[in-house]
Amino acid sequence: MEHNLEDTIALLGRTPAALDGLLRDLPETWTLRNEGGETWSAFDIVGHLIHGDRTDWIPRARMILEFGESRTFEPFDRLGQVRESEGKSLGQLLDEFARLRKEKLGELRALNLGREDLERRGRHPVFGAVTLSELLATWAAHDLTHLHQISRVMAHQYREAVGPWVRFLGVMHCDGHSSSS
Amino acid sequence: MEHNLEDTIALLGRTPAALDGLLRDLPETWTLRNEGGETWSAFDIVGHLIHGDRTDWIPRARMILEFGESRTFEPFDRLGQVRESEGKSLGQLLDEFARLRKEKLGELRALNLGREDLERRGRHPVFGAVTLSELLATWAAHDLTHLHQISRVMAHQYREAVGPWVRFLGVMHCDGHSSSS
Repeated sequence: MEHNLEDTIALLGRTPAALDGLLRDLPETWTLRNEGGETWSAFDIVGHLIHGDRTDWIPRARMILEFGESRTFEPFDRLGQVRESEGKSLGQLLDEFARLRKEKLGELRALNLGREDLERRGRHPVFGAVTLSELLATWAAHDLTHLHQISRVMAHQYREAVGPWVRFLGVMHCDGHSSSS
Repeated sequence: MEHNLEDTIALLGRTPAALDGLLRDLPETWTLRNEGGETWSAFDIVGHLIHGDRTDWIPRARMILEFGESRTFEPFDRLGQVRESEGKSLGQLLDEFARLRKEKLGELRALNLGREDLERRGRHPVFGAVTLSELLATWAAHDLTHLHQISRVMAHQYREAVGPWVRFLGVMHCDGHSSSS
């Protein structure tokens, strides 16, 4: 399926409300617990989404438009959310995510990208050449991979509480599929 | 972790707003497409959640309280959402889900369940003896397994659009883990 920028923007615009509806004022059982060890809680993941909007997607888009393949993206700092979240409540992070996402989508619209722009290439530190279209589609899919992760982390808290039903609940059998989900 | 009924009710109360925030008025690329063949779209999954609230969770809870292990639950009709959704828009289904969930949580609260009630047992057609506590925890985890599924089905639509990033997106590598996720 071809990438449609309006579909991407529509999805990106909804993630803050989806996470707000799911997480705001929810007991900490659901929002602060993780899957053990150094894994992330829902709180950590919201911080990660904020950090991505601040440092990754639009800055990389601008780098493609300005420098093409001549400059390699900065690697994404997967622990940047620790700094974003420090000393904040989940409600504050949800507010910040909604505000920042709106601002970044405003910047995206202001770029007024046409079909030729979307085919422009930049240089990813691991993949090499990537298109602006692929970068923006990944921004949306990255929201979905973290919604997928949040539902899994939350379900993990009830692994024992559900008793034998654990067999029928697909989310309880998801291993995350990558270190970077 | 022990099952906490208030945590369960808190989560169950948020799912309609989370799905509304994510899906209402989103382009049909995201809401009506599936993962191929007989798999479900986001639209189908909302219908399934409605059908579960109508026929499964509270009716089974009442059966445990009334008949204990002497009567086996009706098997859950996994295709019941076809009837629930026929001829309706996604907006209508989201409205219906919000209304029905509120009603069912009102019924749950009115049961005024104590610790001893939660330990009462019923009979599941596959598992045999299950407790009321396990049934109610599963109601919440079932919401999460379908939020997990919705994010996966939506991400599937961008498998090609994301180009090489498909490697880094965990959600793109999720196989659903069960036929009943």
